[in-house]
Order: sequence, then structure tokens, then C-alpha cells
Amino acid sequence: MNYNIAVIPGDGIGPDIVEQGKLVLDKVGEKFGHSFEYTEVLAGGIAIDTVGEPLPQETIDVCKKSDSVLLGAVGGPKWDNLADRPEKALLGLRSELELFANIRPATMFDQLRDACPLKDEIIGDGGLDLVVVRELTGGIYFGERGRQGEKAFDTMEYSIDEIKRIAKVGFDIAMKRNKKVTSIDKANILENSRLWRSVVEEMAKDYPEVEVNHLYVDNGAMQLVINPKQFDVILTGNMFGDILSDEASMITGSIGMLPSASLGSSKLGMYEPIHGSAPDIAGMDKANPIATILSVAMMLRYSFDLEDEAKAIEKAVEEVLEDGYRTGDIMSKGMKLIGTKEMGSLIASKL
Amino acid sequence: MNYNIAVIPGDGIGPDIVEQGKLVLDKVGEKFGHSFEYTEVLAGGIAIDTVGEPLPQETIDVCKKSDSVLLGAVGGPKWDNLADRPEKALLGLRSELELFANIRPATMFDQLRDACPLKDEIIGDGGLDLVVVRELTGGIYFGERGRQGEKAFDTMEYSIDEIKRIAKVGFDIAMKRNKKVTSIDKANILENSRLWRSVVEEMAKDYPEVEVNHLYVDNGAMQLVINPKQFDVILTGNMFGDILSDEASMITGSIGMLPSASLGSSKLGMYEPIHGSAPDIAGMDKANPIATILSVAMMLRYSFDLEDEAKAIEKAVEEVLEDGYRTGDIMSKGMKLIGTKEMGSLIASKL
Ligand SMILES: CC(C)[C@H](C(=O)O)[C@@H](O)C(=O)O
Ligand SMILES: CC(C)[C@H](C(=O)O)[C@@H](O)C(=O)O
Repeated sequence: MNYNIAVIPGDGIGPDIVEQGKLVLDKVGEKFGHSFEYTEVLAGGIAIDTVGEPLPQETIDVCKKSDSVLLGAVGGPKWDNLADRPEKALLGLRSELELFANIRPATMFDQLRDACPLKDEIIGDGGLDLVVVRELTGGIYFGERGRQGEKAFDTMEYSIDEIKRIAKVGFDIAMKRNKKVTSIDKANILENSRLWRSVVEEMAKDYPEVEVNHLYVDNGAMQLVINPKQFDVILTGNMFGDILSDEASMITGSIGMLPSASLGSSKLGMYEPIHGSAPDIAGMDKANPIATILSVAMMLRYSFDLEDEAKAIEKAVEEVLEDGYRTGDIMSKGMKLIGTKEMGSLIASKL
Repeated sequence: MNYNIAVIPGDGIGPDIVEQGKLVLDKVGEKFGHSFEYTEVLAGGIAIDTVGEPLPQETIDVCKKSDSVLLGAVGGPKWDNLADRPEKALLGLRSELELFANIRPATMFDQLRDACPLKDEIIGDGGLDLVVVRELTGGIYFGERGRQGEKAFDTMEYSIDEIKRIAKVGFDIAMKRNKKVTSIDKANILENSRLWRSVVEEMAKDYPEVEVNHLYVDNGAMQLVINPKQFDVILTGNMFGDILSDEASMITGSIGMLPSASLGSSKLGMYEPIHGSAPDIAGMDKANPIATILSVAMMLRYSFDLEDEAKAIEKAVEEVLEDGYRTGDIMSKGMKLIGTKEMGSLIASKL
């Protein structure tokens, strides 16, 4: 089949890693008989520099007409003092494309065990493998905000429908995994968390096979550190998901390796590595393209229903790690240091 | 001198540990020539059971007239389904007594190094020693909240004055420590965080010796896991402080050992262990009283300006740990297992 992909290289290492994502996609196309067409569009700092705004309308239009979006990274210190910062592009894309579900697997690659900050007895056998399902178009990110005299305020709000649709995503993913959902909120304080909790409890009735529990966010942040293996699917709101997904990915020690998907109610999704734009190594063939390549695998899985193709990429990544190849960020003693392009080519060649 | 202390044993192990706190205080009094008078009052689940509400007016009145408040712990599953839950007592006390600054040291006790979940290479020499300064009477905890049709909302708000007074506490504490403040917010999204950041930057000008940096809360949650030693004073709002202080204390591996102080603009403060009420071991002489005893030390330091007395308690705790005595929660091989009372007595006897 033929797929149209909107490509947003973005800033810093964005272009470097997106190039390798496309390379791997093309190889998948060749191997499995699909064709991928790319339309490159601007967003982030480069869009500010080129057309004066972080998210041009044309970018939104192209993304909406595409089958899926691949994003590198946006932002950098260069634009940090502007009112309209590059990150606005992310928020804009999430809401314009109605991508309400952010899926962030936090997986420990066994080959990178040494990089895990937690003691071995906490990780135990089998590494870490959990996924954070974060609501992405609601909560305090999109509520009313402003100043009133000497005060500044932001509103955190959720509707029943918003909670329902993200909870459904969480439960559906749990059904394909270990059938456990941990919903994280602050229901002892927040009214929107109380609503959240009751909607999740209601939804749980439709999934009798799924074990459900609820944690307060402060406890969730602790449990991730001392007992991360209790988690399968963490289901949470936009703000708590921002914090907990970053904490979870850091705990795996594999943050340069982790992909993400942002999904809506159609098949159109946005796929991007969870790491940042690392402007200090941009264009130097030093960036690790694996998170982007694994994001491409998620795209094949979630937007195009190409499970075999997705698995093939994931296996290729494992093999290259197994062979001892590493980019600088994941380098360790006795391993072979390679650049962005070689990493991409090696993974493509394993397909 | 003579000090009047309002004592709130609360629920679960609360009474067990508070008893040991008083024992140690009495010994300090004897040794250093002070006298402490205690007025016991109700709050939490026991107050719900006895008088039908978590925070009786009498408790508030007694606390307001006291020189300081010592609290054990409140809450437990028994009251989890009530609308007016025991935790309301905490929120009520914080706001009635205007305790806007929550000081939570996250210290790793070298004797408990094995309990730290992080790898040794992250901790390095000298253990961990940071303090979270959390705003406690503002933010989303006290903003307007409610339902509107199918929606639920909560408001996160800060005024310039609220931010100023907590920032001042943070900077003053940093001046007595390693002169570094890390302010944590979400200024790339939240309007109240932007105000927060600008007020902190303004205040920094009055403390030229203090090194100041700003992190987004998602990054803060990550940095605590991979590089906790970069922190001296973490200055943050109510909600972020709730999450980050729990994460920070868990990282030390010494959570049963950690005290806290909640301070206002007068000398009256509230002191309590950061751990919970552990109803499963209540009254069994199993609870670890050290966090409460160290909270008493904080009371001497912050409310009564008795620095020598505070240090004497901290030294006594170290010595008992050094001698190998442990309650069950911190027990490890080769150590001597003792109960709540023996731990309290041993610490008192070292004074
Ligand atoms: C850049 C920022 C606006 C964004 C967020 O807070 O959602 C980022 O932290 C993320 O998690 O994708
Ligand atoms: C019990 C709860 C209301 C409280 C809070 O969120 O402040 C607790 O988590 C704490 O940190 O003291």
C-alpha cells in the first residue's frame, strides 16, 4: 500500500534522526511491498526563523491530509526567550490533530542494563517494561489561564467524555499486555481527579479481566523508584503524565532509545522520540536515531496496522545492539562507537 | 524556658511515635533546662470517630495558642470512603495556622545506604542531602474547584506575595546550606509558573551569593533519579512539591527516617514525620519513631531557636544507628531488631 507521511524534522538533531527514520521506513517498504511518500513541513524553532511562527497553518494542513506524522524534535535555547516558543508547535499539533492519547513505553533494553540508575535488585530479571498512557489534549495544559492583578491562574479540567476516551485507550492497551491498569490522580485533593477516578472505575466494569488500581500521584512518583515492576499500564492525565512518563523513562536508563505515539480517534497519529533536540550535537552525526526508528515502528503498528513490519524493526534494533554497536549517548566499555548514519544503515540492513 | 506544645497523635501508629517524640523532648528539657508542656488534641480519623469531623475547632484553637504543634500521622483505609476524610485535618491545619512553607529534608543516612534504590555510582561519597521547600497554602490545593455539568475543574493560582514569601524561605535556607536554589515549575505551559519564575528571579537579586537555576517539573522528576546530587534546595509550589518531595525522600532509601516542618510567618510551626499512619502495625511497638524524633529536632531548631538541642537529638539518632539498633522497617542483616519504645529510650539515653 501507499502511505503519505508528513515529516517534521524540527530543530537541533531533529533532521539527523528523522533521516534515519525515513531510511528504515523505505527499507521496510522495499522488503514488505509498501511505499511511503514524505512531505516535509516546518514546525518549531526553524519555523519561527523561516516564517515567523512556530506552527504555520500549512504544516497543520499537510499533517491533517497525511496518513501519519513523523516528528524529530523541536526547541532549543536559541528560542527560549520568545513569547511564542517552539514548544507551542507541539501543543498546537496535539490539539489541531486531536491527538488525545500519548503512548510512552518505558522499556529497559537489556543490553543497556548498566545505564539503569536503579539497583539490580529492584530491576530483577526481565528488565522493565511499562507503558504510560497520558491524556494529551485536556487538563491544565488547555484550561483557561491568565493574570488577575497580582495573581496568575491556570485551570485544570476534565470532562467525562475526555476521561472516557483516554481510559478506553489505556484499557485496550492493557488487554494486549499484562492486563493491569494503574490509574494515577490526586483524588484526595482535586475535583477533576475525583471525576477521573469514578470514570475509570466505571470503565473498569467493561474490562473484567483487567486488574485496576488507583494511586495518588505523589505515591506514584515514589513507586516508580522503588517498585517499578508493579506497573503494566499507567493511565493518567496530561500534567501528571508529563511528570511520570519522564520519570519512568529515566528509570529505564534507556531514554535515548524511547519512542512515543500520540493518537486520536482516527488512524492519524504523530510519532516522535521522547528525547529533546540536543542542539549541541546537531548535524554532527552523533545523535542516536534509535528512538526515532522505534517511533516509526509504532507508526506502522498504530496508524497502519502493520504489526509484522513493526516487529521487524524492533528486532533489527535489538540485533544491532546485540552486535555491540552504540552511539555516543549509550556507549560503554568494549562496545563499538558509531555515528547516526551508520546506526540507521545497520538497522535498515538487518531488515 | 517553658514551651507549650499542642500534640496531635492522630491515627494508626501516630500515638506510638508521638509518645517517643515527647520522651526525647522531656530528656532534652531535663538536660538543657527547658520545660515542655503538652496539650493533646484530636485530628484525623480519630476525630471523625470521636466528634464527627476531622478537624474540630477546639484543635485549631489549642494549636493557635501553642508555641508549636507536634503531629503523628492521620488517615487510614477505615475512613477512605468518607467525604470529609482525615487528610482534611492536615489541609485545615496548614491553612488555619497559615503554615505556608513545608520544609522536607531528604537525607540519606549513611548507615542505611543499602536501602537506597539508586546505584552506588549515582550516590557517590557523602550520601544525599537536599531539602525540598514546598509552598503549602496556595496553588491548586486551595484554588476554586467544582463541577460544571459534565466537567470538573480545579484552579492553580499564585499571587506575587505568596511566591515571594516562600521564595524568601528557600533562599534563607540555602544561605545556611550550600547556597544553591533550584526552582521547579512548568513555565513553558503554566501562567502561574511564569509568574513564579519571574518572582524567584527577582528575589535572586537580593541573594547574590546564591546560585539559582530553574527546571521544568518533568525534568526535575528525571534529574532526581539520575543526578540527585546536583540539588541543594529545591523550591517549588504545592502540587509539584507534593510529588517531588515524595520522590526525593524515596530516593534516599530512608523514608521512615525523614521529618518535616511546616512554617508560617510566626514562630509557630507544625512538625511531623513524612511517612503515613501504617494502621497495620499500630499499637504493636513496631513503628519507627525516628522520623518523629527528628521532627522534634526541627521544632527545637525552627520554632524555639534551640540549635544545640536540635543537634544533640540528631547526634543521638546517628549514634543509635551506629550502634546497630534498627526497627523492623530499616532492619538489615547483622543489626539488632528493637521496638518503638526501645528505640525512643535508646535515643533519649544518648542525650
Ligand atoms: C515541551 C513540553 C510542552 C512538553 C509537555 O509538557 O507536554 C514535553 O515536556 C512533553 O512531554 O512532550
Ligand atoms: C495527605 C495529602 C493531602 C498530603 C498532601 O497532598 O499535601 C500529603 O500527601 C502530604 O504531602 O502531606
